[in-house]
Amino acid sequence: MERNELLAKIKDRMPEKRYIHTIGVADTAIALAERFGNDTKKAEIAGILHDSCKFADRQWMQQIIIEQKMDPTLLDYHHELWHAPVGAYVAKTEFGVMDDDILNAIAYHTTGRANASDLECIVYIADLIEPNRKYPGVEELRKAAVELDLQALMILCITHSIHFLMSKHQPVFPDSFNCYNDLLLKKRG
Amino acid sequence: MERNELLAKIKDRMPEKRYIHTIGVADTAIALAERFGNDTKKAEIAGILHDSCKFADRQWMQQIIIEQKMDPTLLDYHHELWHAPVGAYVAKTEFGVMDDDILNAIAYHTTGRANASDLECIVYIADLIEPNRKYPGVEELRKAAVELDLQALMILCITHSIHFLMSKHQPVFPDSFNCYNDLLLKKRG
Repeated sequence: MERNELLAKIKDRMPEKRYIHTIGVADTAIALAERFGNDTKKAEIAGILHDSCKFADRQWMQQIIIEQKMDPTLLDYHHELWHAPVGAYVAKTEFGVMDDDILNAIAYHTTGRANASDLECIVYIADLIEPNRKYPGVEELRKAAVELDLQALMILCITHSIHFLMSKHQPVFPDSFNCYNDLLLKKRG
Repeated sequence: MERNELLAKIKDRMPEKRYIHTIGVADTAIALAERFGNDTKKAEIAGILHDSCKFADRQWMQQIIIEQKMDPTLLDYHHELWHAPVGAYVAKTEFGVMDDDILNAIAYHTTGRANASDLECIVYIADLIEPNRKYPGVEELRKAAVELDLQALMILCITHSIHFLMSKHQPVFPDSFNCYNDLLLKKRG
């Protein structure tokens, strides 16, 4: 499926504001993929499809997580996390995406994980810094995105997300902590 | 062994400054145990013995971790963490402490863990707020220690520790993250 066809299908699944965010993520993912020598087409597809389930029915997502034998601890954490792995399922079953790297970039775009691929990091970062995002610290992350290497940039982004959740006294899904530690331990070597 | 006998033995294992810290932790642990209805004698023993291996030989600690089949991931993280579980081993083998709650309070005083007992939390907190500690934010934690319940206080303390490590771009031992999530998920119910 080409960009316009994918976008037309995605548009029906979300309000206008989220659709604008989606285009922002896709275009930012393309730009990051160019900068870091990754596949821009894969980045674009993952960006367009990353939030396909953002407004999906909660009970239905719960059912998919159970039926598809996804990580059951997801159900102990905030339902906000569910749209990512279920989004990967929908990308495969409804949009015919068969590339595992694209599917994982969708599945882990909210949490990150240990041993995340470059594409996974790119989509995670694009989701945080796309031009329509507004929150304290986003400008620093955008600046880092044109200055740092991918590993250092991902450390900054995952640290920002964990700090944000902890400042709100929210649980942090273990994949995010594992992502943080994995990046730091690899950096230290 | 009584307080003075334990203290005399511990004094030889550390510089003066750490010995003063040790007495501070023991006395703070007693005060917290009183406040939260826990066993003050156990809190005192754990407080006195918590840093017995703070200045132990690094290679020897590594050997004990391997020989005693302690969590091997400890060796992937900073050696600063090792003195806690090895300290519990020494409390048992050299000081004859047989009480599991005391031993666990020593073993997890640096990291915390999921399902930490009240005594484990008390020693963790005492180590952070004893009167000789000086760092930005310690007064806020001391104030919380006379105002909040044990669970809320522990959340504040573990959050502080994780924030501190992340602000220094240091890996965070998984037990600390698990402790944080466990407390938050239990609080949410």
